[in-house]
This record gives sequence, C-alpha cells and structure tokens, in this order.
Amino acid sequence: MSRSFRAAAAAIEKEDYVDKVPDSLLREGVDDPNSMRGRFERVIRDAQNSICAAISEVDGSEFHQDAWTRAGGGGGITRVLKDGKVWEKAGVNVSVVYGSMPAEAYRAAVGRDVKDLKDADRVPFFAAGISSVMHPWNPHAPTMHFNYRYFETDEWNGVPGQWWFGGGTDITPSYVVEEDMKHFHGTYKNVCDKHDPEFYPKFKTWCDEYFKIKHRGETRGLGGIFFDDLNDRDPEKILAFSTECVNNVVNAYVPIVKKHMNDPYTEEEKAWQQLRRGRYVEFNLVYDRGTTFGLKTGGRIESILMSLPKTAGWEYDHKPAPGTPEADFLDAARNPREWV
Amino acid sequence: MSRSFRAAAAAIEKEDYVDKVPDSLLREGVDDPNSMRGRFERVIRDAQNSICAAISEVDGSEFHQDAWTRAGGGGGITRVLKDGKVWEKAGVNVSVVYGSMPAEAYRAAVGRDVKDLKDADRVPFFAAGISSVMHPWNPHAPTMHFNYRYFETDEWNGVPGQWWFGGGTDITPSYVVEEDMKHFHGTYKNVCDKHDPEFYPKFKTWCDEYFKIKHRGETRGLGGIFFDDLNDRDPEKILAFSTECVNNVVNAYVPIVKKHMNDPYTEEEKAWQQLRRGRYVEFNLVYDRGTTFGLKTGGRIESILMSLPKTAGWEYDHKPAPGTPEADFLDAARNPREWV
Repeated sequence: MSRSFRAAAAAIEKEDYVDKVPDSLLREGVDDPNSMRGRFERVIRDAQNSICAAISEVDGSEFHQDAWTRAGGGGGITRVLKDGKVWEKAGVNVSVVYGSMPAEAYRAAVGRDVKDLKDADRVPFFAAGISSVMHPWNPHAPTMHFNYRYFETDEWNGVPGQWWFGGGTDITPSYVVEEDMKHFHGTYKNVCDKHDPEFYPKFKTWCDEYFKIKHRGETRGLGGIFFDDLNDRDPEKILAFSTECVNNVVNAYVPIVKKHMNDPYTEEEKAWQQLRRGRYVEFNLVYDRGTTFGLKTGGRIESILMSLPKTAGWEYDHKPAPGTPEADFLDAARNPREWV
Repeated sequence: MSRSFRAAAAAIEKEDYVDKVPDSLLREGVDDPNSMRGRFERVIRDAQNSICAAISEVDGSEFHQDAWTRAGGGGGITRVLKDGKVWEKAGVNVSVVYGSMPAEAYRAAVGRDVKDLKDADRVPFFAAGISSVMHPWNPHAPTMHFNYRYFETDEWNGVPGQWWFGGGTDITPSYVVEEDMKHFHGTYKNVCDKHDPEFYPKFKTWCDEYFKIKHRGETRGLGGIFFDDLNDRDPEKILAFSTECVNNVVNAYVPIVKKHMNDPYTEEEKAWQQLRRGRYVEFNLVYDRGTTFGLKTGGRIESILMSLPKTAGWEYDHKPAPGTPEADFLDAARNPREWV
C-alpha cells in the first residue's frame, strides 16, 4: 500500500457542487501559488484543458463538466464525454485534497519513528492529481488511462514536510498491433530517457506488475509506465518529468486512435472487446488502489467510477482458439513483452 | 466476516477436470453417506438437477457441465446455460471442499479459547454448497441468486466438531412489480413461517443488509432471505429448513420469469437493465464475501465469476427523472420495502 492512498483515504469529506470553476483549488491566502503545490495544480489544470481539447477535436463532441469544492479547502473538476462519435466514454478528473493522515502512515512516509508523535495523532497533508480513462467504441482503437499526482505533508514537530510524486500512462487495446505499441511505449521511453535512462525499464516493469489481474494471471492491458513514492532527487526534476509525461498523453495515444477509429470490425471482435472491458472492470473494482480506497472511504463515487467502461461483458470459461489474434493478445497479457 | 468464508479460503487447492461426474463428492470409505455431510450433498445435488431441469424446460436450451475433483477429496460440478432463449447466462454450481482452518478462525467458531490449540495449528473442516445466478435477457424478467451451504469442523483435542448452515435466495429485477415481489417474498415467508415465525423478518432484513452496495447506499436488488452461521437448534431442523428453501427456488422465481420473458421493451429499458447489471458487478466484485475470498485465494475463477452478467454498463452520474419507474426502483433499493 503506497503512502499516497493511505493519506488520501483519510481526507475524504463531503463535497459541494459549485457553479463556477475556481481559478485555483488551493486555499486562498494560505497556499503560495508559486509553491510546488501551486505549480503542480497549474500543470494538471493545463493538462486537463489541453487533453480535453485534443480529444474533443478528434471526436467532434464536447466534455460535460462538474466542479465541486470541499469543506476543508480544495475540490475537483470532473470532465466527461459520453456517447461521442469515437469514444463511448472519456473522462478527465482533477482534484486537490487537504486532509490529515494517521500517525502510522506518517511514520511509514518518514521512514522512522517521530518524536512525540502519538498513535492517535494526525499529520496534515496535501494531495493533487489528474486521472483519466478513455474508452473508444471501435474494438481496434485502444482504451488509455493516465494518472499523475503529488503529495505533501506539512512540517510536524520538527520533522520537515515530506513529499512524493506518482503517476503513469498505460494503454489497453483488445488486439496486439506491434507498430502501435512501439509508438506508445516509444513515446514514453523517449520522455523517460531524457530524465533518467533507468526510468523506462523500471517504470515499464512496475506498470506490468501494478496492472496485473492476479486472479487471472494476466495484465489489464499492454502496459506503459507507472511510478509511485518518487522522491529520490530534486523535486524540480521530478516535476519536470511528471509535466513532460502528462504533456505527452496526446502524442502517445491520439495517433493510434485516429489510425483505427474507422477500422471495420466484426461482431466477434466487438464481443472480444466487451470481454476485455470486463477484465478492465475486474481490475479496477478488485485491485486498483485509488478505486477500492475511494469506494470504501466515501469519495465522490461518480468521479471514481468514471473509469468504468460504458459497456462490459463476461462469458463463462471463454478460451480463444490457438493462433487467433485474441489468443495472441492473451499471450501478451500473460507474458508482458518488450515493445521498444 | 463469517466463519464459513474464512474456512473455505484456507481450503483452496488445485483442481483437476474429470470426465465422469462422481456419484458422490465425499471421500470414499471415509465419509458416511448417511451423515449430515452425505445428506446435505444429496440435497444440493438433487436441487442442482431439478432446478437446471426446470430452467432448461422454460428456456428450451441445455446446461453445459464441467466437473472437477480436488486433490484432498471433494470437488465440484458447474453447470452453465449460455445465450439461451430466455436467459443470457444461468449457472448452478455445486462444490464439496475438505480443508483446514486457522486456529483463530476455529476459536471464533467455537466461541472461546481451545486448550492446547496453538496459533499455527489448523483444524480440519468440511464445506458443501450450491450457488446460482440467473440473468435473463428481458429487462422485465428479474435476475435471481441463491446459495445454500453447510460447514463442519472435525473434533479437535476434546472439543466436539462444530457445524453451521448458511444460505438464502434473493431477486434482482430492474423494475418494481409489486405483485411479483409479493409472490417471491411470499413464497419464502411461507417456507420460513413453517419452521420459525422469526425467520422471515430476521432473514429478510439480513438479506437487505448483506446485499447493500455501501458506496452507492443502495441494495443490489429487492431482497429475499439471507442467513449465516445458523446452529441454534437441532441440525435436523435446519437441514429441513435449508432443504425446503432450496426446493422452493423454482416456485418462487420461475412464474415471474414466465410472466415477463416475452414482455415488449424499449431501448431505454434495456439500457437501464445494463446499469443495474453494472451495480450487480460492483456488489459482487467489491463486497460479496464468497467472490472476493475466492478471487484472492485462488479458487476456480470461472466458477466464481459465473455470477457476473453476460453484459453490464456504467454511465457517468446517471439520475432517473423523478416519477419514472427507474426512480421508483432506486427508491426501493435505497429504502428497502416490506413486500408481504
């Protein structure tokens, strides 16, 4: 369990819908807009705008927007495109949360015991993130998910504030198209390599491990990158890396969708996509830490479950015939491949 | 967490498919066929036969059967009807499991500490059960689920063997039809009342509580009966009650399906059914104890997830208009009603 999710779970409060989207979700007069909090918020707000604009342009449909604020400061902006021409469901969600984390989670974050910190104490924290899932209609056009987040705790009793970043972008096609995977993984390998040559191999493997549907012994999709609890270097460097990652979502994903959004497909291919969507639901409801924590701690359900596909299916004991494209996909999900 | 699930979780082993369905899943030469184990197995095997026969007759399609045995004795028989005329997916699963439960679970079952029982000790147990879910195509024909189970531990270090029963039958329509609910609940109230006038009110409430989708604040369906850890009277009496419950599945359910299986319906009604199926998936993957334990402990995945519908759907922030039949259903799911 990462520190991030334990902390966020403790921060859930009742939200109120608001009519006007605030310029900033930070606490006015308390948080410095030039702090890492403020700069990260601008990165994810800008990314929400630019990514939604790019998707809207391809789809020819607009996103619906809901904004809300939380009693303790912070809030969220959910944008959803429903029943588009290309995507049956696409959502991009931004949230900023202030809360307090239990002593035990704080000790884990600090990596040691903290003087005078009692078990019942709670340490204030801040969390901001952007998350998104996009499900196209065409079974040859892949689903894509990304999430980038920044956490901070306040200074507490002489212990300096802690901070860490997490995130990733991953792709979930129903069929293996080698060239597309080379493009998607290649885009993120290039981004990673500019920041640290160890990032791509490490975060690619982490992604395959994180998105594993353990009871099936298969991954949800065909991977990408995933990282968490990242604080091993200058935060400016990780901010720059996270920014470049989120700013490459469109480059990595949209060309693949444009290439396939009008592909002809059979009923059988649509049915196979539905079974893969069923696997997507299984992963998100059983294993995804953000989802399971959100559901159990009273987060905004509609924003959390925005990630679920419009339609999904299950079939008893379905086994693709050997040598089919469906069997090839399953093989790639059971034995993650190197794409670049 | 009930004792049953903790115990079953400890007993999962690798299964082998078998060609011939064994006459009994008990251990030959070890278990007495006239014991409660043997008699309960016959009850659930007979129920599987009679219920599948009744469903096949209405549908005009046959069940496919898979049988397997476990290394440590026991096994299972899964029957599934796929893409029928009336049901898109119907499954009836019988299993008999031998295993051993952790000391802590055994202490909870006995209700006190046990002399010489060390934390690392494991106490042998037996579990047998039948479980079923049936999803019809027509949005006016309800989904139905039932499960009846019997657990026993062996005598251990002077403590006599423990035993308990659990079970229930519940119904999940997409629309409220008062008359149908009176029939379904009325059938089970009659069964309950013959055995104990306190059963129906108690088990009806238990069902509403167990099948609650907590993050939605609504029940999965419109209830029925549910009980667990039942051992407060002569086991013969509980066997008789459980037997009558499982033998009334067809009486309680099939007339409602026959009445509605050819009802005309609109695209909107089918879409609403899909959203309710999505809720069914949410409950089963997030809360159902048998499912979540099975997935996490390596049970036979295809038998466990047989309960999921062939198709399901999710829509962001869907809210039925006030005064519609869909809003009436949600009201009944949020505020469980008394039907009889």
